[in-house]
Amino acid sequence: MPLDDVLVATALNAWKLNLDRAEKILLPLDDQQLQREVAPGKNRILYLLGHLVAVHDAMLPVLGLGELLHPELADPFLTKPDRAAADLPSRTELHRCWRDVHDALNAHFARLTPAEWLMKHTLISDADFAAHPLRNRLAVMLSRVAHINSHLGQAALALKP
Amino acid sequence: MPLDDVLVATALNAWKLNLDRAEKILLPLDDQQLQREVAPGKNRILYLLGHLVAVHDAMLPVLGLGELLHPELADPFLTKPDRAAADLPSRTELHRCWRDVHDALNAHFARLTPAEWLMKHTLISDADFAAHPLRNRLAVMLSRVAHINSHLGQAALALKP
Repeated sequence: MPLDDVLVATALNAWKLNLDRAEKILLPLDDQQLQREVAPGKNRILYLLGHLVAVHDAMLPVLGLGELLHPELADPFLTKPDRAAADLPSRTELHRCWRDVHDALNAHFARLTPAEWLMKHTLISDADFAAHPLRNRLAVMLSRVAHINSHLGQAALALKP
Repeated sequence: MPLDDVLVATALNAWKLNLDRAEKILLPLDDQQLQREVAPGKNRILYLLGHLVAVHDAMLPVLGLGELLHPELADPFLTKPDRAAADLPSRTELHRCWRDVHDALNAHFARLTPAEWLMKHTLISDADFAAHPLRNRLAVMLSRVAHINSHLGQAALALKP
């Protein structure tokens, strides 16, 4: 396999491994566990679950791969902080959104070539991208891997004895 | 620049950006702030600081780039949990270790070629690496980026109002 393909496969595997970890930690939680705060007065795990789906849904337009699949998640889980939205989707609905979003992303990711990973994303202007070519699609994906972990590290505080 | 060089530069930039974030959050903290627990009964930020240095120091032997620079950090910050070690290095000492370790790593990282990033690390056997070529040096580095963030997400709970 050419070097550039192995480099992309390695980065994509980091996404896959960390997403798998998120799924193992977050998806088996029951409603009561989802209500736990990660620390007193901080976000509930339910909010982190919805927030990760909403942030990952936004990767579709950010990476130029499609429209939001669940625009209804942006207000309660991105715009508003935890407990500000009048009502939140159920666990079952969030699980369905999780699947939709990650199935779509993973199908796109499997098809992107190394050159396509290095293209600009939609949050950066042509001029800025010309000056900062490392701010490409791959950088967005790696940044989301880091983001997943910042919240899994928090969720662990509420879930580990 | 060839594709493989840009791919590596993008991944390396993720390391740099997240390490910069860690430095901005952790290095300005005073002794009192370092004593804060990330949640009641959980690790102090001081422990996370030492833990990150110790984990990153271990990247030198793990990536086959050299010996540990600060083997004295392994017992208090890797082997033992927080509060188990009799005494911990001072903030000034930890800052010095932080600089040593990251200066060494970053000097090595700047010189590694794409092919060298895809070589095996020292925690995997030849046989396992032959079967799982994505478990390479780059994968270790990306995994450490995720690890930094799992702890920064925790530290934020103690530091943000």
